[in-house]
Amino acid sequence: MSGIELRGVSKRFKDVTALDNVTLNFEENKIYGLLGRNGAGKSTMLNIISNRLFPDEGEVLLDGQPVRENDMAQGQIFLISEKTLYPEKMKIKEAFKWTQEFYPDFDVEKARSLAEEFGLSDKKKVDSLSTGYETIFKVILALCVNVPYVFFDEPVLGLDANHRELFYKHLLTKYGEDPFTAVISTHLIEEVSNVIEEIVIIKRGKIIYNESRDELLGKGYTVSGNAGRVDSYIKGRDVIGTDSLGGLKTAYLLGRPDRGSMPEGLELTGMDLQKLFIQLTNE
Amino acid sequence: MSGIELRGVSKRFKDVTALDNVTLNFEENKIYGLLGRNGAGKSTMLNIISNRLFPDEGEVLLDGQPVRENDMAQGQIFLISEKTLYPEKMKIKEAFKWTQEFYPDFDVEKARSLAEEFGLSDKKKVDSLSTGYETIFKVILALCVNVPYVFFDEPVLGLDANHRELFYKHLLTKYGEDPFTAVISTHLIEEVSNVIEEIVIIKRGKIIYNESRDELLGKGYTVSGNAGRVDSYIKGRDVIGTDSLGGLKTAYLLGRPDRGSMPEGLELTGMDLQKLFIQLTNE
Repeated sequence: MSGIELRGVSKRFKDVTALDNVTLNFEENKIYGLLGRNGAGKSTMLNIISNRLFPDEGEVLLDGQPVRENDMAQGQIFLISEKTLYPEKMKIKEAFKWTQEFYPDFDVEKARSLAEEFGLSDKKKVDSLSTGYETIFKVILALCVNVPYVFFDEPVLGLDANHRELFYKHLLTKYGEDPFTAVISTHLIEEVSNVIEEIVIIKRGKIIYNESRDELLGKGYTVSGNAGRVDSYIKGRDVIGTDSLGGLKTAYLLGRPDRGSMPEGLELTGMDLQKLFIQLTNE
Repeated sequence: MSGIELRGVSKRFKDVTALDNVTLNFEENKIYGLLGRNGAGKSTMLNIISNRLFPDEGEVLLDGQPVRENDMAQGQIFLISEKTLYPEKMKIKEAFKWTQEFYPDFDVEKARSLAEEFGLSDKKKVDSLSTGYETIFKVILALCVNVPYVFFDEPVLGLDANHRELFYKHLLTKYGEDPFTAVISTHLIEEVSNVIEEIVIIKRGKIIYNESRDELLGKGYTVSGNAGRVDSYIKGRDVIGTDSLGGLKTAYLLGRPDRGSMPEGLELTGMDLQKLFIQLTNE
Protein backbone atom coordinates (compact mmCIF):
# COMPACT_ATOMS: atom_id res chain seq x y z
CA MET A 1 0.00 0.00 0.00
CA SER A 2 1.36 3.47 -0.79
CA GLY A 3 1.39 6.26 1.74
CA ILE A 4 2.10 5.88 5.43
CA GLU A 5 0.46 2.90 7.04
CA LEU A 6 0.17 2.10 10.74
CA ARG A 7 -0.48 -1.59 11.37
CA GLY A 8 -1.69 -2.61 14.81
CA VAL A 9 0.46 -0.03 16.58
CA SER A 10 0.33 -0.08 20.40
CA LYS A 11 2.34 1.87 22.94
CA ARG A 12 2.13 1.89 26.74
CA PHE A 13 3.75 4.23 29.25
CA LYS A 14 3.69 2.63 32.72
CA ASP A 15 -0.01 2.03 33.36
CA VAL A 16 -1.29 4.23 30.52
CA THR A 17 -2.10 2.79 27.08
CA ALA A 18 -1.24 5.73 24.81
CA LEU A 19 -2.00 3.87 21.56
CA ASP A 20 -4.16 0.79 21.41
CA ASN A 21 -3.83 -1.33 18.27
CA VAL A 22 -4.01 1.57 15.80
CA THR A 23 -4.40 0.72 12.13
CA LEU A 24 -4.53 3.71 9.84
CA ASN A 25 -3.39 4.97 6.44
CA PHE A 26 -2.21 8.47 5.54
CA GLU A 27 -2.53 8.59 1.77
CA GLU A 28 -0.42 10.59 -0.66
CA ASN A 29 -1.29 14.23 -1.34
CA LYS A 30 -4.08 14.77 1.13
CA ILE A 31 -4.56 17.17 4.03
CA TYR A 32 -5.58 15.43 7.25
CA GLY A 33 -6.81 16.78 10.56
CA LEU A 34 -5.62 14.58 13.42
CA LEU A 35 -7.99 15.52 16.22
CA GLY A 36 -8.04 14.38 19.80
CA ARG A 37 -8.19 15.69 23.34
CA ASN A 38 -5.05 16.42 25.36
CA GLY A 39 -3.60 13.03 26.23
CA ALA A 40 -5.52 11.10 23.56
CA GLY A 41 -2.33 9.76 21.93
CA LYS A 42 -1.77 12.16 19.00
CA SER A 43 1.81 13.10 19.86
CA THR A 44 2.73 9.51 20.67
CA MET A 45 1.50 8.51 17.21
CA LEU A 46 3.48 11.27 15.50
CA ASN A 47 6.62 10.44 17.47
CA ILE A 48 6.36 6.78 16.46
CA ILE A 49 5.89 7.67 12.79
CA SER A 50 8.96 9.90 12.90
CA ASN A 51 11.14 7.35 14.72
CA ARG A 52 11.46 9.31 17.95
CA LEU A 53 9.62 6.56 19.83
CA PHE A 54 9.28 2.85 19.10
CA PRO A 55 5.98 1.00 19.36
CA ASP A 56 5.52 -1.93 21.76
CA GLU A 57 3.58 -3.74 19.06
CA GLY A 58 2.82 -3.23 15.40
CA GLU A 59 4.74 -1.28 12.79
CA VAL A 60 4.69 1.79 10.57
CA LEU A 61 5.30 1.42 6.83
CA LEU A 62 6.06 3.97 4.14
CA ASP A 63 5.12 2.69 0.69
CA GLY A 64 5.24 -0.79 2.15
CA GLN A 65 8.68 -0.47 3.83
CA PRO A 66 9.09 -0.28 7.63
CA VAL A 67 10.13 3.24 8.73
CA ARG A 68 11.90 2.07 11.89
CA GLU A 69 15.58 2.94 11.74
CA ASN A 70 15.17 3.43 8.00
CA ASP A 71 16.98 6.64 7.01
CA MET A 72 15.60 6.56 3.49
CA ALA A 73 12.02 6.53 4.79
CA GLN A 74 12.75 9.13 7.48
CA GLY A 75 14.05 11.49 4.80
CA GLN A 76 10.51 11.53 3.36
CA ILE A 77 8.91 12.48 6.69
CA PHE A 78 9.11 15.73 8.66
CA LEU A 79 7.54 16.37 12.06
CA ILE A 80 7.24 19.65 13.87
CA SER A 81 6.44 18.94 17.48
CA GLU A 82 6.47 20.52 20.90
CA LYS A 83 10.12 19.67 21.41
CA THR A 84 12.61 21.25 19.08
CA LEU A 85 15.69 19.21 18.32
CA TYR A 86 17.91 22.17 17.46
CA PRO A 87 20.91 23.18 19.54
CA GLU A 88 19.60 25.90 21.85
CA LYS A 89 22.17 28.57 21.06
CA MET A 90 21.82 28.16 17.30
CA LYS A 91 20.57 31.19 15.39
CA ILE A 92 17.50 30.91 13.17
CA LYS A 93 19.49 31.43 9.98
CA GLU A 94 21.97 28.73 10.97
CA ALA A 95 19.04 26.42 11.78
CA PHE A 96 17.74 26.91 8.23
CA LYS A 97 21.10 25.84 6.76
CA TRP A 98 21.39 22.97 9.21
CA THR A 99 17.96 21.68 8.19
CA GLN A 100 19.12 21.67 4.57
CA GLU A 101 21.96 19.31 5.53
CA PHE A 102 19.40 16.69 6.54
CA TYR A 103 16.67 17.58 4.02
CA PRO A 104 18.42 18.57 0.76
CA ASP A 105 15.20 19.94 -0.78
CA PHE A 106 14.73 22.41 2.08
CA ASP A 107 14.21 25.84 0.49
CA VAL A 108 16.43 28.28 2.43
CA GLU A 109 15.40 31.26 0.29
CA LYS A 110 11.72 30.67 0.93
CA ALA A 111 12.39 30.17 4.65
CA ARG A 112 14.12 33.57 4.82
CA SER A 113 11.27 35.20 2.98
CA LEU A 114 8.63 33.61 5.25
CA ALA A 115 10.62 34.64 8.33
CA GLU A 116 10.45 38.21 7.13
CA GLU A 117 6.73 37.96 6.38
CA PHE A 118 6.02 36.53 9.86
CA GLY A 119 8.24 39.15 11.52
CA LEU A 120 10.77 36.60 12.81
CA SER A 121 14.34 37.96 12.86
CA ASP A 122 16.68 35.26 11.59
CA LYS A 123 19.42 36.62 13.85
CA LYS A 124 17.58 35.43 16.97
CA LYS A 125 18.63 32.31 18.84
CA VAL A 126 16.30 29.33 18.80
CA ASP A 127 16.05 29.22 22.60
CA SER A 128 15.24 32.94 22.92
CA LEU A 129 11.87 32.73 21.14
CA SER A 130 8.49 33.31 22.80
CA THR A 131 5.85 30.57 22.49
CA GLY A 132 4.32 32.23 19.43
CA TYR A 133 7.62 32.78 17.62
CA GLU A 134 8.87 29.29 18.45
CA THR A 135 5.76 27.99 16.69
CA ILE A 136 6.38 30.31 13.74
CA PHE A 137 9.97 29.05 13.44
CA LYS A 138 8.78 25.45 13.31
CA VAL A 139 5.95 26.20 10.89
CA ILE A 140 8.42 27.86 8.51
CA LEU A 141 10.63 24.75 8.60
CA ALA A 142 7.62 22.59 7.77
CA LEU A 143 6.51 24.83 4.90
CA CYS A 144 9.98 24.81 3.31
CA VAL A 145 11.20 21.26 3.87
CA ASN A 146 9.68 19.84 0.66
CA VAL A 147 9.22 16.22 1.65
CA PRO A 148 6.12 14.16 0.79
CA TYR A 149 4.84 13.72 4.40
CA VAL A 150 4.74 16.66 6.80
CA PHE A 151 3.27 16.32 10.29
CA PHE A 152 2.26 19.52 12.09
CA ASP A 153 1.82 19.03 15.84
CA GLU A 154 0.06 22.15 17.17
CA PRO A 155 1.15 24.50 14.36
CA VAL A 156 -0.78 27.50 15.71
CA LEU A 157 0.05 27.34 19.44
CA GLY A 158 0.48 30.91 20.68
CA LEU A 159 0.00 32.45 17.22
CA ASP A 160 -2.16 35.55 16.93
CA ALA A 161 -5.17 35.45 14.62
CA ASN A 162 -3.31 37.28 11.82
CA HIS A 163 -0.43 34.80 11.86
CA ARG A 164 -2.79 31.83 12.00
CA GLU A 165 -4.55 33.10 8.89
CA LEU A 166 -1.16 33.61 7.20
CA PHE A 167 -0.13 30.04 8.06
CA TYR A 168 -3.33 28.53 6.63
CA LYS A 169 -2.89 30.64 3.48
CA HIS A 170 0.72 29.54 2.91
CA LEU A 171 -0.15 25.91 3.62
CA LEU A 172 -2.93 25.91 1.03
CA THR A 173 -0.83 27.81 -1.52
CA LYS A 174 2.01 25.30 -1.18
CA TYR A 175 -0.42 22.39 -1.38
CA GLY A 176 -2.00 23.90 -4.49
CA GLU A 177 1.35 24.40 -6.23
CA ASP A 178 2.95 21.12 -5.28
CA PRO A 179 0.66 18.67 -3.42
CA PHE A 180 1.99 16.71 -0.45
CA THR A 181 0.52 14.98 2.59
CA ALA A 182 -0.04 17.34 5.52
CA VAL A 183 -1.26 15.96 8.84
CA ILE A 184 -2.36 18.72 11.18
CA SER A 185 -2.86 18.00 14.85
CA THR A 186 -4.59 20.98 16.45
CA HIS A 187 -7.06 22.03 19.12
CA LEU A 188 -8.39 24.92 16.99
CA ILE A 189 -10.80 22.68 15.21
CA GLU A 190 -13.34 25.13 13.85
CA GLU A 191 -10.60 27.25 12.25
CA VAL A 192 -8.94 24.33 10.52
CA SER A 193 -12.24 22.85 9.35
CA ASN A 194 -12.01 24.57 5.96
CA VAL A 195 -8.38 23.56 5.45
CA ILE A 196 -8.61 19.80 5.99
CA GLU A 197 -10.18 17.20 3.72
CA GLU A 198 -9.82 14.08 5.84
CA ILE A 199 -10.42 13.71 9.56
CA VAL A 200 -8.98 11.22 12.00
CA ILE A 201 -10.35 11.38 15.54
CA ILE A 202 -8.45 9.60 18.28
CA LYS A 203 -9.87 8.96 21.74
CA ARG A 204 -7.93 7.25 24.54
CA GLY A 205 -5.49 5.73 22.07
CA LYS A 206 -8.10 4.35 19.65
CA ILE A 207 -9.20 5.71 16.28
CA ILE A 208 -12.93 6.43 16.58
CA TYR A 209 -13.45 8.20 13.23
CA ASN A 210 -11.47 8.17 10.00
CA GLU A 211 -13.31 9.68 7.05
CA SER A 212 -13.71 12.79 4.94
CA ARG A 213 -14.78 16.04 6.59
CA ASP A 214 -17.93 16.15 4.50
CA GLU A 215 -18.95 12.62 5.44
CA LEU A 216 -18.31 13.32 9.11
CA LEU A 217 -20.25 16.60 9.12
CA GLY A 218 -23.06 14.90 7.21
CA LYS A 219 -23.49 12.41 10.05
CA GLY A 220 -25.11 14.84 12.43
CA TYR A 221 -27.25 17.92 12.95
CA THR A 222 -28.40 20.17 15.78
CA VAL A 223 -31.83 21.18 16.94
CA SER A 224 -32.35 24.22 19.19
CA GLY A 225 -35.24 25.96 20.87
CA ASN A 226 -37.70 25.58 23.71
CA ALA A 227 -36.37 22.83 25.99
CA GLY A 228 -39.67 20.95 26.19
CA ARG A 229 -40.06 20.83 22.41
CA VAL A 230 -36.43 19.80 21.91
CA ASP A 231 -36.93 17.01 24.45
CA SER A 232 -40.04 15.77 22.72
CA TYR A 233 -38.27 15.66 19.35
CA ILE A 234 -35.08 13.94 20.54
CA LYS A 235 -36.84 11.16 22.48
CA GLY A 236 -35.75 7.82 21.02
CA ARG A 237 -33.23 9.43 18.64
CA ASP A 238 -29.46 9.10 18.61
CA VAL A 239 -28.49 12.06 20.84
CA ILE A 240 -24.78 12.58 21.37
CA GLY A 241 -25.10 15.58 23.67
CA THR A 242 -27.09 18.60 24.79
CA ASP A 243 -26.44 22.15 26.03
CA SER A 244 -28.98 24.05 28.11
CA LEU A 245 -29.30 27.73 28.88
CA GLY A 246 -32.34 28.87 30.83
CA GLY A 247 -35.39 27.43 29.07
CA LEU A 248 -33.49 26.90 25.83
CA LYS A 249 -31.82 23.71 24.76
CA THR A 250 -29.56 22.62 21.92
CA ALA A 251 -29.33 18.94 21.10
CA TYR A 252 -26.65 17.30 18.93
CA LEU A 253 -27.94 14.29 17.03
CA LEU A 254 -26.55 11.67 14.72
CA GLY A 255 -28.55 10.67 11.67
CA ARG A 256 -30.72 12.72 9.30
CA PRO A 257 -33.24 15.27 10.55
CA ASP A 258 -36.86 14.12 10.48
CA ARG A 259 -38.64 17.32 9.57
CA GLY A 260 -42.06 15.70 9.59
CA SER A 261 -42.00 15.01 13.31
CA MET A 262 -40.18 18.20 14.33
CA PRO A 263 -42.30 20.53 16.50
CA GLU A 264 -42.93 24.11 15.31
CA GLY A 265 -40.42 26.75 16.36
CA LEU A 266 -37.31 24.56 16.55
CA GLU A 267 -34.24 25.65 14.66
CA LEU A 268 -32.41 23.03 12.62
CA THR A 269 -28.75 23.58 11.72
CA GLY A 270 -25.81 21.56 10.45
CA MET A 271 -23.19 20.32 12.85
CA ASP A 272 -20.08 22.39 13.26
CA LEU A 273 -16.93 20.30 13.45
CA GLN A 274 -15.75 21.60 16.82
CA LYS A 275 -19.12 21.03 18.49
CA LEU A 276 -19.33 17.57 16.98
CA PHE A 277 -15.80 16.81 18.18
CA ILE A 278 -16.61 17.96 21.71
CA GLN A 279 -19.72 15.81 21.85
CA LEU A 280 -17.93 12.76 20.44
CA THR A 281 -14.96 13.01 22.79
CA ASN A 282 -16.44 14.25 26.08
CA GLU A 283 -16.06 11.74 28.90
CA MET B 1 -13.01 57.16 39.55
CA SER B 2 -13.83 53.63 40.63
CA GLY B 3 -12.35 50.58 38.94
CA ILE B 4 -8.83 50.31 37.63
CA GLU B 5 -7.55 53.36 35.80
CA LEU B 6 -4.43 53.68 33.69
CA ARG B 7 -3.33 57.30 33.31
CA GLY B 8 -0.80 58.10 30.61
CA VAL B 9 1.12 54.88 31.12
CA SER B 10 4.26 54.42 28.99
CA LYS B 11 6.90 51.73 29.06
CA ARG B 12 9.95 51.24 26.86
CA PHE B 13 12.33 48.26 26.57
CA LYS B 14 15.56 49.36 24.90
CA ASP B 15 14.42 50.74 21.53
CA VAL B 16 10.88 49.30 21.68
CA THR B 17 7.97 51.35 23.02
CA ALA B 18 5.79 48.63 24.55
CA LEU B 19 3.14 51.04 25.89
CA ASP B 20 2.69 54.54 24.57
CA ASN B 21 0.72 56.93 26.80
CA VAL B 22 -2.11 54.51 27.57
CA THR B 23 -5.17 55.93 29.33
CA LEU B 24 -7.88 53.38 30.02
CA ASN B 25 -10.46 52.36 32.61
CA PHE B 26 -11.48 48.82 33.61
CA GLU B 27 -14.83 49.31 35.33
CA GLU B 28 -16.28 47.20 38.11
CA ASN B 29 -18.15 43.99 37.27
CA LYS B 30 -17.59 43.83 33.55
CA ILE B 31 -15.98 41.23 31.29
CA TYR B 32 -13.37 42.72 28.95
CA GLY B 33 -11.54 41.27 25.98
CA LEU B 34 -8.03 42.72 25.75
CA LEU B 35 -7.08 42.00 22.14
CA GLY B 36 -3.82 42.62 20.36
CA ARG B 37 -1.26 40.92 18.20
CA ASN B 38 1.79 39.19 19.63
CA GLY B 39 4.06 41.99 20.84
CA ALA B 40 1.35 44.68 20.92
CA GLY B 41 1.86 45.41 24.64
CA LYS B 42 -0.89 43.36 26.34
CA SER B 43 1.37 41.47 28.75
CA THR B 44 3.35 44.60 29.56
CA MET B 45 0.10 46.33 30.52
CA LEU B 46 -1.02 43.42 32.70
CA ASN B 47 2.37 43.20 34.39
CA ILE B 48 2.28 46.92 35.20
CA ILE B 49 -1.24 46.68 36.64
CA SER B 50 -0.17 43.80 38.84
CA ASN B 51 3.04 45.47 40.04
CA ARG B 52 5.43 43.06 38.32
CA LEU B 53 6.76 45.90 36.17
CA PHE B 54 6.86 49.65 36.77
CA PRO B 55 5.90 52.18 34.11
CA ASP B 56 8.39 54.78 32.86
CA GLU B 57 5.62 57.36 32.90
CA GLY B 58 2.06 57.54 34.16
CA GLU B 59 0.35 55.55 36.87
CA VAL B 60 -2.27 52.93 37.59
CA LEU B 61 -5.01 53.66 40.15
CA LEU B 62 -7.50 51.37 41.88
CA ASP B 63 -10.54 53.28 43.11
CA GLY B 64 -8.41 56.42 42.89
CA GLN B 65 -5.39 55.05 44.82
CA PRO B 66 -2.06 54.24 43.14
CA VAL B 67 -1.47 50.47 42.95
CA ARG B 68 2.31 50.74 42.89
CA GLU B 69 3.80 49.04 45.94
CA ASN B 70 0.34 49.17 47.51
CA ASP B 71 -0.37 45.79 49.14
CA MET B 72 -3.97 46.69 49.86
CA ALA B 73 -4.63 47.38 46.18
CA GLN B 74 -2.66 44.34 44.99
CA GLY B 75 -4.82 42.13 47.22
CA GLN B 76 -7.78 43.14 45.00
CA ILE B 77 -6.01 42.15 41.77
CA PHE B 78 -5.04 38.72 40.45
CA LEU B 79 -3.12 38.02 37.24
CA ILE B 80 -2.54 34.69 35.59
CA SER B 81 0.26 35.05 33.11
CA GLU B 82 2.78 33.07 31.12
CA LYS B 83 5.20 32.95 34.02
CA THR B 84 4.07 31.14 37.13
CA LEU B 85 5.44 32.49 40.37
CA TYR B 86 5.12 29.23 42.28
CA PRO B 87 8.09 27.24 43.55
CA GLU B 88 8.70 24.62 40.87
CA LYS B 89 8.68 21.56 43.09
CA MET B 90 5.46 22.54 44.84
CA LYS B 91 2.52 20.19 44.38
CA ILE B 92 -0.78 21.49 43.04
CA LYS B 93 -2.61 20.94 46.30
CA GLU B 94 0.09 22.81 48.23
CA ALA B 95 -0.11 25.62 45.68
CA PHE B 96 -3.83 25.95 46.39
CA LYS B 97 -3.17 26.37 50.13
CA TRP B 98 -0.27 28.72 49.46
CA THR B 99 -2.51 30.93 47.31
CA GLN B 100 -4.97 31.13 50.20
CA GLU B 101 -2.21 32.59 52.39
CA PHE B 102 -1.99 35.59 50.06
CA TYR B 103 -5.64 35.72 49.00
CA PRO B 104 -7.74 34.82 52.06
CA ASP B 105 -10.95 34.47 50.01
CA PHE B 106 -9.38 31.82 47.74
CA ASP B 107 -11.80 28.87 47.71
CA VAL B 108 -9.65 25.74 48.20
CA GLU B 109 -12.65 23.41 48.07
CA LYS B 110 -13.80 24.78 44.73
CA ALA B 111 -10.23 24.59 43.38
CA ARG B 112 -10.06 20.87 44.28
CA SER B 113 -13.39 20.25 42.66
CA LEU B 114 -12.41 22.10 39.46
CA ALA B 115 -9.09 20.22 39.34
CA GLU B 116 -11.06 16.98 39.38
CA GLU B 117 -13.45 18.22 36.70
CA PHE B 118 -10.54 19.29 34.43
CA GLY B 119 -8.70 16.02 35.07
CA LEU B 120 -5.75 17.70 36.85
CA SER B 121 -4.29 15.53 39.59
CA ASP B 122 -3.54 17.73 42.62
CA LYS B 123 -0.63 15.47 43.52
CA LYS B 124 1.36 16.62 40.48
CA LYS B 125 4.18 19.10 40.80
CA VAL B 126 3.74 22.54 39.27
CA ASP B 127 6.83 22.16 37.06
CA SER B 128 5.78 18.77 35.70
CA LEU B 129 2.69 20.02 33.85
CA SER B 130 2.28 20.06 30.07
CA THR B 131 1.37 23.37 28.39
CA GLY B 132 -2.34 22.55 28.53
CA TYR B 133 -2.35 21.47 32.16
CA GLU B 134 -0.21 24.41 33.24
CA THR B 135 -2.90 26.65 31.74
CA ILE B 136 -5.62 24.66 33.52
CA PHE B 137 -3.81 25.05 36.83
CA LYS B 138 -3.64 28.82 36.39
CA VAL B 139 -7.23 29.11 35.21
CA ILE B 140 -8.40 27.24 38.31
CA LEU B 141 -6.50 29.68 40.53
CA ALA B 142 -8.15 32.59 38.73
CA LEU B 143 -11.65 31.11 39.03
CA CYS B 144 -11.26 30.51 42.78
CA VAL B 145 -9.35 33.56 43.98
CA ASN B 146 -12.43 35.70 44.62
CA VAL B 147 -10.96 39.17 44.20
CA PRO B 148 -12.71 42.01 42.35
CA TYR B 149 -10.24 42.24 39.41
CA VAL B 150 -8.98 39.12 37.66
CA PHE B 151 -6.69 39.32 34.61
CA PHE B 152 -6.45 36.24 32.38
CA ASP B 153 -3.39 36.33 30.09
CA GLU B 154 -3.88 33.55 27.49
CA PRO B 155 -6.28 31.44 29.59
CA VAL B 156 -6.82 28.83 26.86
CA LEU B 157 -3.25 28.28 25.58
CA GLY B 158 -2.86 24.57 24.80
CA LEU B 159 -6.36 23.66 26.05
CA ASP B 160 -8.39 21.24 23.98
CA ALA B 161 -11.80 22.36 22.70
CA ASN B 162 -13.66 20.55 25.49
CA HIS B 163 -11.62 22.24 28.21
CA ARG B 164 -11.96 25.65 26.55
CA GLU B 165 -15.72 25.26 26.59
CA LEU B 166 -15.58 24.17 30.23
CA PHE B 167 -13.51 27.25 31.12
CA TYR B 168 -15.93 29.66 29.40
CA LYS B 169 -18.85 27.95 31.18
CA HIS B 170 -17.26 28.24 34.63
CA LEU B 171 -16.24 31.83 34.01
CA LEU B 172 -19.79 32.84 33.05
CA THR B 173 -21.32 30.85 35.92
CA LYS B 174 -19.06 32.54 38.44
CA TYR B 175 -19.73 35.94 36.91
CA GLY B 176 -23.47 35.28 37.04
CA GLU B 177 -23.40 34.25 40.71
CA ASP B 178 -21.02 36.90 41.97
CA PRO B 179 -20.00 39.54 39.41
CA PHE B 180 -16.40 40.71 39.21
CA THR B 181 -14.15 42.31 36.60
CA ALA B 182 -12.56 39.79 34.26
CA VAL B 183 -10.04 40.97 31.65
CA ILE B 184 -9.30 38.25 29.11
CA SER B 185 -6.29 38.58 26.85
CA THR B 186 -6.51 35.91 24.15
CA HIS B 187 -5.75 35.12 20.52
CA LEU B 188 -8.88 32.95 20.16
CA ILE B 189 -11.04 35.94 19.37
CA GLU B 190 -14.03 34.37 17.67
CA GLU B 191 -14.51 31.90 20.51
CA VAL B 192 -14.43 34.54 23.20
CA SER B 193 -16.68 36.90 21.27
CA ASN B 194 -19.82 35.65 23.03
CA VAL B 195 -18.22 35.82 26.46
CA ILE B 196 -16.96 39.41 26.50
CA GLU B 197 -19.02 42.60 26.75
CA GLU B 198 -16.31 45.20 26.34
CA ILE B 199 -13.41 45.22 23.91
CA VAL B 200 -10.05 46.94 24.16
CA ILE B 201 -7.82 46.63 21.10
CA ILE B 202 -4.16 47.52 21.48
CA LYS B 203 -1.81 48.01 18.54
CA ARG B 204 1.89 48.83 18.89
CA GLY B 205 1.40 50.05 22.44
CA LYS B 206 -1.58 52.32 21.74
CA ILE B 207 -5.28 51.72 22.43
CA ILE B 208 -7.04 51.88 19.06
CA TYR B 209 -10.52 50.74 20.16
CA ASN B 210 -12.23 50.73 23.54
CA GLU B 211 -15.96 50.10 23.37
CA SER B 212 -18.67 47.51 23.74
CA ARG B 213 -18.60 44.42 21.52
CA ASP B 214 -21.93 45.36 20.01
CA GLU B 215 -20.80 48.88 19.14
CA LEU B 216 -17.58 47.56 17.61
CA LEU B 217 -19.31 44.87 15.54
CA GLY B 218 -21.89 47.44 14.44
CA LYS B 219 -19.12 49.57 12.93
CA GLY B 220 -18.51 47.30 9.99
CA TYR B 221 -19.88 44.81 7.50
CA THR B 222 -18.61 42.57 4.73
CA VAL B 223 -19.56 42.30 1.09
CA SER B 224 -18.67 39.22 -0.97
CA GLY B 225 -19.11 38.03 -4.51
CA ASN B 226 -17.85 38.65 -8.03
CA ALA B 227 -14.63 40.66 -7.73
CA GLY B 228 -15.63 43.26 -10.31
CA ARG B 229 -18.96 43.96 -8.63
CA VAL B 230 -17.35 44.12 -5.19
CA ASP B 231 -14.78 46.60 -6.56
CA SER B 232 -17.48 48.78 -8.07
CA TYR B 233 -19.39 48.88 -4.76
CA ILE B 234 -16.40 49.60 -2.51
CA LYS B 235 -14.99 52.43 -4.60
CA GLY B 236 -14.88 55.57 -2.45
CA ARG B 237 -16.03 53.71 0.70
CA ASP B 238 -14.09 53.09 3.89
CA VAL B 239 -12.48 49.73 3.11
CA ILE B 240 -10.31 48.23 5.85
CA GLY B 241 -9.28 45.12 3.94
CA THR B 242 -10.03 42.57 1.26
CA ASP B 243 -9.53 38.85 0.64
CA SER B 244 -9.49 37.38 -2.85
CA LEU B 245 -9.91 33.81 -4.05
CA GLY B 246 -10.05 33.23 -7.78
CA GLY B 247 -12.67 35.59 -9.19
CA LEU B 248 -14.33 36.04 -5.80
CA LYS B 249 -13.62 38.84 -3.39
CA THR B 250 -14.63 39.70 0.15
CA ALA B 251 -14.32 43.30 1.28
CA TYR B 252 -14.43 44.47 4.90
CA LEU B 253 -15.91 47.94 5.25
CA LEU B 254 -16.54 50.42 8.01
CA GLY B 255 -19.84 52.27 8.11
CA ARG B 256 -23.36 51.14 7.30
CA PRO B 257 -24.18 49.17 4.17
CA ASP B 258 -25.75 51.19 1.34
CA ARG B 259 -28.15 48.65 -0.10
CA GLY B 260 -29.42 51.07 -2.72
CA SER B 261 -26.12 51.22 -4.57
CA MET B 262 -25.13 47.59 -4.05
CA PRO B 263 -24.92 45.59 -7.30
CA GLU B 264 -27.11 42.47 -7.67
CA GLY B 265 -25.63 39.18 -6.54
CA LEU B 266 -23.40 40.46 -3.75
CA GLU B 267 -23.73 38.90 -0.33
CA LEU B 268 -23.90 41.23 2.65
CA THR B 269 -22.97 39.92 6.10
CA GLY B 270 -22.12 41.29 9.51
CA MET B 271 -18.52 41.52 10.60
CA ASP B 272 -17.16 38.71 12.70
CA LEU B 273 -14.94 39.91 15.51
CA GLN B 274 -11.86 37.93 14.54
CA LYS B 275 -11.99 39.06 10.91
CA LEU B 276 -12.52 42.65 12.01
CA PHE B 277 -9.59 42.37 14.41
CA ILE B 278 -7.31 40.98 11.70
CA GLN B 279 -8.20 43.79 9.32
CA LEU B 280 -7.77 46.48 11.98
CA THR B 281 -4.40 45.21 13.17
CA ASN B 282 -2.68 43.93 10.02
CA GLU B 283 0.48 45.82 9.22
